[in-house]
Amino acid sequence: MATVIDGRALAKQLNQTTSNRVKTLQERFGITPGLVVIIVGDDPASQRYVRNKNRTATRLGINSTVKQLPKDTTEEALLALIEHYNADPAIHGILVQDPLPDQINEKDITRAILPEKDVDGFHPINVGKLYLNDTTQYPVSCTPKGIMTMFSEYGISLKGKNAVMIGRSAIVGKPMAALMLNQGASVSILHRYTKDITEYTKQADIIVSATGHLHTLTKEAVKEGAVVIDVGQNINEAGHLVGDTDYDDLVNKVAYITPVPGGVGPMTIATLMQQSVDLAEWSIQSDK
Amino acid sequence: MATVIDGRALAKQLNQTTSNRVKTLQERFGITPGLVVIIVGDDPASQRYVRNKNRTATRLGINSTVKQLPKDTTEEALLALIEHYNADPAIHGILVQDPLPDQINEKDITRAILPEKDVDGFHPINVGKLYLNDTTQYPVSCTPKGIMTMFSEYGISLKGKNAVMIGRSAIVGKPMAALMLNQGASVSILHRYTKDITEYTKQADIIVSATGHLHTLTKEAVKEGAVVIDVGQNINEAGHLVGDTDYDDLVNKVAYITPVPGGVGPMTIATLMQQSVDLAEWSIQSDK
Repeated sequence: MATVIDGRALAKQLNQTTSNRVKTLQERFGITPGLVVIIVGDDPASQRYVRNKNRTATRLGINSTVKQLPKDTTEEALLALIEHYNADPAIHGILVQDPLPDQINEKDITRAILPEKDVDGFHPINVGKLYLNDTTQYPVSCTPKGIMTMFSEYGISLKGKNAVMIGRSAIVGKPMAALMLNQGASVSILHRYTKDITEYTKQADIIVSATGHLHTLTKEAVKEGAVVIDVGQNINEAGHLVGDTDYDDLVNKVAYITPVPGGVGPMTIATLMQQSVDLAEWSIQSDK
Repeated sequence: MATVIDGRALAKQLNQTTSNRVKTLQERFGITPGLVVIIVGDDPASQRYVRNKNRTATRLGINSTVKQLPKDTTEEALLALIEHYNADPAIHGILVQDPLPDQINEKDITRAILPEKDVDGFHPINVGKLYLNDTTQYPVSCTPKGIMTMFSEYGISLKGKNAVMIGRSAIVGKPMAALMLNQGASVSILHRYTKDITEYTKQADIIVSATGHLHTLTKEAVKEGAVVIDVGQNINEAGHLVGDTDYDDLVNKVAYITPVPGGVGPMTIATLMQQSVDLAEWSIQSDK
């Protein structure tokens, strides 16, 4: 029977630490970490995510603002707003919620945010530093960073392990692969063009799945003792929220597994909070 | 019997194209691509590389300058020189030859070169764009880029292939892995902590070795029909320049292989020339 990695408990613990760091920043430096979340349009799922981020940030003492823009906002107007926050010393992190309407080029927006305020870790220079295993301080995409926290909290070492990343997105797959590589894992990155993922997963010590497809990992596809991290959020045949993996089968075979819900999800938002405070702390250091 | 990928012939062909592009730039736009190679100290191997680059560049019509600095040059002085070339519109590419003396932080130097003059493709923002598979124009590390040219010239498709990159350096392993991934290969990145590389290489359609170790790949470690790219430059037991792989054994088993010498090496320098002209061309487009 696998150890179930409890994302909710870890997130709670991480949030407690974050909240304490906010208090320290206020007491010692008179600084409150400032986060602004910009949302364009009225997509209900995005609205829910943003409310959720804002509520958690506020609860932890972060000065969190939601900036709601109409869905016909021009790219020019959004860029001007980002410039405004780039220049505002009270704002340490700027997040623009996905997805953006068609008239706005997401890439332009990602690059307009100052790298040192890029709380999502999506700016190419931050991605480059991550891939180069740069040892300075820079933000990293929150879902993979949260998974790394899971590994360290559960004492799961990556060095010399065979790791498989299923998915090559900019937000999860690529940064996750880089983080595992930087920790000394041999990393295979798989995706829709991979002919047979089981050829890799059967040999893998660590598998991270971010495909958004049900049954990406079956019991037959993993070896005993593997660590399985499930980033998927899918609705199954019975209408329930589930991950990419056949959790009920895998839980009897693998050594560690994350549940959905209650695994990676809560850690992503807790990591976003952690990173908001990181950026505020780093801003003090760079002022010195 | 494998097809031996002829790096010298390909490099010659690429250089011809580059030379023609230089002429076109001069005739149509009155621009000569300008490359400056900065070398600090008197390491004989570095001196040789730099002379070689300079000679080839000059032969192709590139306006190539070698800037020799004494080995006690300060980081400040080198940064000031880079600033000077950053601001010089006649210079399109700036290359600082490895290795640098201890008093100079290589990372600071890499980041000081303007990304659009970063002819080596080492700046984190260019690395980030590569890893993100950005579709705009940016320079890429020359050895991996040259290998991609080999693949395309020999009609070797990467889509859906199992590719193995042995080595995770910033100059070869990581950019090579990113390029193969971007072309649709499933990519495994291996390195010194990988317990058993043959577990990967035996299944691989494409293997790129950049370990700098003799006998990294034996005949038993590859499958029939594989493509083997050898980036290594080693001196063997008999005192000869050889690659990482057991070439004489492999050539009877695999489908394609690069020799050492005459494989990847000539393509690296030809790609550097190609990219010098790329940067000059892109500078015109960005002026528009």
